[in-house]
Amino acid sequence: MTRFGVVVLAVLVWVTVATAAGIDESKVIDLTYSFDEHTIYWPTAKPFQLEIVSAQKTDAGYWYAANNICLAEHGGTHMDAPLHFAEGKHAADEVPVQQLIGPAAVIDVRAQAAQDVDYRLTVADLQAWEKQHGRIPKGAIVLMLTGWGSRWPDKKKYLGTDQPGDVANLHFPGFSRETAEFLVSQRDIDAIGLDTPSMDYGQSKDFIVHQIINGANKPGLENVANLEKLPAKGATLIALPMKIAKGSGGPVRIIALLP
Amino acid sequence: MTRFGVVVLAVLVWVTVATAAGIDESKVIDLTYSFDEHTIYWPTAKPFQLEIVSAQKTDAGYWYAANNICLAEHGGTHMDAPLHFAEGKHAADEVPVQQLIGPAAVIDVRAQAAQDVDYRLTVADLQAWEKQHGRIPKGAIVLMLTGWGSRWPDKKKYLGTDQPGDVANLHFPGFSRETAEFLVSQRDIDAIGLDTPSMDYGQSKDFIVHQIINGANKPGLENVANLEKLPAKGATLIALPMKIAKGSGGPVRIIALLP
Repeated sequence: MTRFGVVVLAVLVWVTVATAAGIDESKVIDLTYSFDEHTIYWPTAKPFQLEIVSAQKTDAGYWYAANNICLAEHGGTHMDAPLHFAEGKHAADEVPVQQLIGPAAVIDVRAQAAQDVDYRLTVADLQAWEKQHGRIPKGAIVLMLTGWGSRWPDKKKYLGTDQPGDVANLHFPGFSRETAEFLVSQRDIDAIGLDTPSMDYGQSKDFIVHQIINGANKPGLENVANLEKLPAKGATLIALPMKIAKGSGGPVRIIALLP
Repeated sequence: MTRFGVVVLAVLVWVTVATAAGIDESKVIDLTYSFDEHTIYWPTAKPFQLEIVSAQKTDAGYWYAANNICLAEHGGTHMDAPLHFAEGKHAADEVPVQQLIGPAAVIDVRAQAAQDVDYRLTVADLQAWEKQHGRIPKGAIVLMLTGWGSRWPDKKKYLGTDQPGDVANLHFPGFSRETAEFLVSQRDIDAIGLDTPSMDYGQSKDFIVHQIINGANKPGLENVANLEKLPAKGATLIALPMKIAKGSGGPVRIIALLP
């Protein structure tokens, strides 16, 4: 074998071994909040409930724990299926898993959001990201990083209100109408997500970002945890939602593979 | 640049491009059943319930759909957290996501299970697999393929009974005690799973496989769908469960990356 043949063979063997290993588990991070009595829901929704069925040694001598759970679909770290705001579009179980796997484009607007709790992500913010990192890739999941994760699970700080039913006083950042329109018409993205309770900012009355994103048959990810641990570019997101038939959304476990 | 230098560079560029793409979405398959009114639960458990909160155009003019859901943790495609049968071990939200990501070792016992609905996976079955495919790799998720997926969602065929509470007539295959002991003591696996309702076969009274696997702080995956679509070796499993604090298990969305 020639010298270059040996080198090529060595590289190919290395590639094969690296590929066979599958996923590098040391580069996996969890972007999900636990569901418990502190989990934040919309002020009009029922909170998460866990009913203990068993948590004890049985008469047969072995330990046995089991629970029932009840929850609204839209609380904690969850997915909005397209059906949430768009009649006839994909229900939770109909969203292809491929649509929730893809390159994460993280738009950091923590500085703007710190100045304005009602901040909305602008097209200029996207363009600034693209100037630095290149065009938002095909199939991307565009994530808005507002810094709101540091307020979790304090309802007053995270939602703007801790009073049940008090939707009038919701304050947190979200996407703008123009940005949603730009993403569905000018870029080929798979989904969006952010670290606040809603794709629309807290004071929205028409939920226009939901209407645009879900209307384009694309899901949204809300209350995403640990977003500040992702690089602006280079991570792969994997968001696997509970597969609820006729669901308008539901709990989702989100991980990222760091580059 | 020398000739071999050019070839090495070309290969490295190819590797970099391939890696940057992250996950090949054309090789992703979904191993999860939808949650609906047909979802199979243990005969003593409550079935899955979806309560419609809204599915209509609001007065404001936009479509809005939302639901509440109630379910037992152990039904449909779900995870048994170690806490299910082992006091003090990991609850659902404490299982590291890395433990549910790994190489899938698929042990095909469809022929045996077709002859015996109470079939239990033997150490000899594992050894036959290893003779053909090599030692079960470190961090593997060992999956028992019984063929039971073709019976879903027919409760009588899948469980052996369609009567609520009728645990006496449960019949389906599972792991054997000896196989569970071998896997936790002689191999370095992360989890096990199968395409029936339980790690233990239907007629088990002591749930000894649960006691051994959960006792070793390892989770189990039950009612896994589409297992027959996996190769015996070479796929990577990613199972992301709902992150339930104090949970003994819960709904899990499982995908495989084909080789």
